[in-house]
Amino acid sequence: MQNFIVDRWLPDEDSLVNVKSEWFIKGLFLYEVVRTYNRLPFALNKHYDRLLHSAEYMGVEKAVPDFDMLVSLVMEGIEKNKTNNELRIRLVLAGQNLLLLYEELPVMSKDIYELGVKVGISPFHRPSEYIIPGKIKLIGAPWSFLTRTKLGEYYDLLLLNEKGEVCEGSFTNVFLVKEETLITPHEASGILPGITRENVLNLARALEMKVEVRSVMAWELFVADELFLTHTSAGIVPVRRLENKVLIEEFPDGYTRILMDNFEGYVMTREDNWKGIKL
Amino acid sequence: MQNFIVDRWLPDEDSLVNVKSEWFIKGLFLYEVVRTYNRLPFALNKHYDRLLHSAEYMGVEKAVPDFDMLVSLVMEGIEKNKTNNELRIRLVLAGQNLLLLYEELPVMSKDIYELGVKVGISPFHRPSEYIIPGKIKLIGAPWSFLTRTKLGEYYDLLLLNEKGEVCEGSFTNVFLVKEETLITPHEASGILPGITRENVLNLARALEMKVEVRSVMAWELFVADELFLTHTSAGIVPVRRLENKVLIEEFPDGYTRILMDNFEGYVMTREDNWKGIKL
Amino acid sequence: MQNFIVDRWLPDEDSLVNVKSEWFIKGLFLYEVVRTYNRLPFALNKHYDRLLHSAEYMGVEKAVPDFDMLVSLVMEGIEKNKTNNELRIRLVLAGQNLLLLYEELPVMSKDIYELGVKVGISPFHRPSEYIIPGKIKLIGAPWSFLTRTKLGEYYDLLLLNEKGEVCEGSFTNVFLVKEETLITPHEASGILPGITRENVLNLARALEMKVEVRSVMAWELFVADELFLTHTSAGIVPVRRLENKVLIEEFPDGYTRILMDNFEGYVMTREDNWKGIKL
Amino acid sequence: MQNFIVDRWLPDEDSLVNVKSEWFIKGLFLYEVVRTYNRLPFALNKHYDRLLHSAEYMGVEKAVPDFDMLVSLVMEGIEKNKTNNELRIRLVLAGQNLLLLYEELPVMSKDIYELGVKVGISPFHRPSEYIIPGKIKLIGAPWSFLTRTKLGEYYDLLLLNEKGEVCEGSFTNVFLVKEETLITPHEASGILPGITRENVLNLARALEMKVEVRSVMAWELFVADELFLTHTSAGIVPVRRLENKVLIEEFPDGYTRILMDNFEGYVMTREDNWKGIKL
Repeated sequence: MQNFIVDRWLPDEDSLVNVKSEWFIKGLFLYEVVRTYNRLPFALNKHYDRLLHSAEYMGVEKAVPDFDMLVSLVMEGIEKNKTNNELRIRLVLAGQNLLLLYEELPVMSKDIYELGVKVGISPFHRPSEYIIPGKIKLIGAPWSFLTRTKLGEYYDLLLLNEKGEVCEGSFTNVFLVKEETLITPHEASGILPGITRENVLNLARALEMKVEVRSVMAWELFVADELFLTHTSAGIVPVRRLENKVLIEEFPDGYTRILMDNFEGYVMTREDNWKGIKL
Repeated sequence: MQNFIVDRWLPDEDSLVNVKSEWFIKGLFLYEVVRTYNRLPFALNKHYDRLLHSAEYMGVEKAVPDFDMLVSLVMEGIEKNKTNNELRIRLVLAGQNLLLLYEELPVMSKDIYELGVKVGISPFHRPSEYIIPGKIKLIGAPWSFLTRTKLGEYYDLLLLNEKGEVCEGSFTNVFLVKEETLITPHEASGILPGITRENVLNLARALEMKVEVRSVMAWELFVADELFLTHTSAGIVPVRRLENKVLIEEFPDGYTRILMDNFEGYVMTREDNWKGIKL
Repeated sequence: MQNFIVDRWLPDEDSLVNVKSEWFIKGLFLYEVVRTYNRLPFALNKHYDRLLHSAEYMGVEKAVPDFDMLVSLVMEGIEKNKTNNELRIRLVLAGQNLLLLYEELPVMSKDIYELGVKVGISPFHRPSEYIIPGKIKLIGAPWSFLTRTKLGEYYDLLLLNEKGEVCEGSFTNVFLVKEETLITPHEASGILPGITRENVLNLARALEMKVEVRSVMAWELFVADELFLTHTSAGIVPVRRLENKVLIEEFPDGYTRILMDNFEGYVMTREDNWKGIKL
Repeated sequence: MQNFIVDRWLPDEDSLVNVKSEWFIKGLFLYEVVRTYNRLPFALNKHYDRLLHSAEYMGVEKAVPDFDMLVSLVMEGIEKNKTNNELRIRLVLAGQNLLLLYEELPVMSKDIYELGVKVGISPFHRPSEYIIPGKIKLIGAPWSFLTRTKLGEYYDLLLLNEKGEVCEGSFTNVFLVKEETLITPHEASGILPGITRENVLNLARALEMKVEVRSVMAWELFVADELFLTHTSAGIVPVRRLENKVLIEEFPDGYTRILMDNFEGYVMTREDNWKGIKL
């Protein structure tokens, strides 16, 4: 793969950065993960806005190129990295240095969509929004990092905040369905409000589902009718088991199925996901 | 400066690492900051134990050399980096890669010791030990990082946890003196228990001061008789002002002065600070 | 004194209730404390609304008479209890039983207004609004009760919530003045929003002071320019000392003085304090 | 029924106390609920110790008679109140006034033991031990009182603390069984450590069950193998349903059954439950 490293395109083996610099020592790494559909970057404008917001918060906004420039760079990299598969592109701000790191998007097993995945509760907590602003996406947030060291057989582990409310997985957002209502934790609980999450909420409203974005206590997950995760690489992932004992769902039908069936068509045609990329 | 980068010594400008690797993307950076006294690394064994503990927690303990090897490497670097000043050496584990980064220890202004520094309360919180284990020293812990972006005129800003208890500064530990008792937050509040902090506690006990290591509410700082910070690079730093209005101390005397006067003599001669280094 | 006990007027020594009943065993006692100015009950309509709200919450709203009936009863008791002093009237719902308990309003020492009082921080905490609804005024809320056992030399002790935010005293609300802004804790922190507090906020806005009703961390009290308490019996009480060491104020002037000078005139003439009582 | 009211025995209809007194206005009511087995008061010494502890905390310990006097009074009341059923006796300290209130112990339906009960999660929270000392048993603790207003079809509702840990029901303690371990919340979570709870823990240890007394997150209840409640009036009550959806147990066997089968025999013969009552 070719990657954009500060000011030039370099192959993986030459993608080097100097660690004797302040950004490395201070740990200033901001990032976004973008995927392609049909080799076009998905919701790049939304990732851009979020990266810019984090950069402004950190005082390194000058290192962010303007949006048109970013589109050009991202597209140039897609051109350079010929492959039959979709791509995953990491936009990284390492201090003042912009990095665009390319790799193939892992192909998800069909099983996760047909059988559902197993999810647990993380032994680590994520702080509420009032403790740390949730939207600042830092590489190496310790709660996510530590949680990932404990995944074991679980697809993801869900983190609670200091009140026992559900926040999110280490790389996913979480939704539940209860009494024909689609429910997901609100930002005050301390989440990174993902772009897939936002698209699912918009799709559900377009389908006239009842939607609640609110504080969710962890135990509510265990009395849910349906449960699913969302993340950029895999879209909507149904949950079959929660912790060791509780079978949530055989999901032949239900909201999860409806949302899964409509998701790709919806995101492909919704204009605000393709701003700057497609007419 | 010469730095040890994975397997060889390289000058600053060539201290490059590959960012197209899992450790970078996952944000797995563990580190310790060691200083020299008389060009000998201080408390290297304690930093080593802490790094090893973090590495075991993260499952990358194989990347940590044995202690004798580390001593050899650190001493070799001190030899290579000739300077009249003391050194600051960062031990970094970037995934499986060991880095030793050398720089001169900044010379502290005498004013901070004679006049005291100005300290504030951080707008960001640090989670309690029960939320995130405090001893795991990650580069880029967001509460520390975010706090450092707000330092302004303050020497450091003190972080509270989710209960409103004092934890620590973004790079310091904090002590108060109240009614002839030396008080510092306990580990359960969520702190990185620094090696300078430990030496101060040992010194205070050796001097038969009354010592309490306990939960400290933030407001207690404002009714303290004396207040000081500790960190590796500067030792004991007295605090003159806390937030905008409150004058804490003219510290001509008091526990702070006694501890400052005795600190260097104590740490230079206490054996457990020099294990593996001096006879 | 004559008191209204369930259905008749009885002197103090005969003010008996049966304790072999469910309300006593369950501890269902709701109450309001009303004072008179010029022997007219102050803000009776506001106390009534609050009592009714609590009673509805508890499912005992049928025990609350309509407002006109309450006005008649309260006025009848004022008539019966001849005295040269103002009165303090407790409206109590003991289960389904309405009690009106009369006593003389204690005459406040002028010193508290001229010299200010000494205030501390309670060792007990009051839960946030999200844990227990703050507006339900129960006799015997344990945090207030326990706090009152520790008053000692303090006029009142301020309770913090589980986050370390200031809530209120055991019988007072608290205000601070900082940089020409009047600040008081918001309801989400877990307070009983007093009627004197409300009048002070209205007065301050009428005087075009800048007002903030928000979360207040305990340590902010210690960097305030001025500090005062409010409660029904004494109105506005300036604070001179906070905990053992910190002198807050000599308050010759400042917002506290302005509010104190204007308070009685304001509340006596503001119509919504006298609804149902005076034309 | 005859009740002891301050200094004499009075029938229910004459069990009157004066409410125009400080203890009523301040809400100082401490209490214990004692039951009889074979018309002998169970664990009276333990209830006595707890009442005395609360009274000392409140500064009203002089109002507590010595233990022998209390035994005499309690036994005298049992004599006076002839009935074929067991009794429930409330020991109340209303300020300085001692009250002993007698009633028949309600006969529990056999169904609760054979079918198990339905339990939910309270919308109200109980503070942790560090916020309010859990052992002080006040009439009208608002979290319990408010919870009881919401019982509806549930036998009891379990209260969580501010961290989302399970504490207890509004009148019960809670146990779970998971992987052949008996688990119950520790005192630090904020519980009233009941005498039935203590007897169950002692019995389980006597039966060599593995026991854990620790922090329990609410969601852990939903993955338990068995769940039961304990309280004075009913002993051990198995739980069949938790909230609306989850079937916990058909409990034909398991720890719950073993503990239920052995409970009465154990408490009847264990000496420390009968100190001062039986040889």
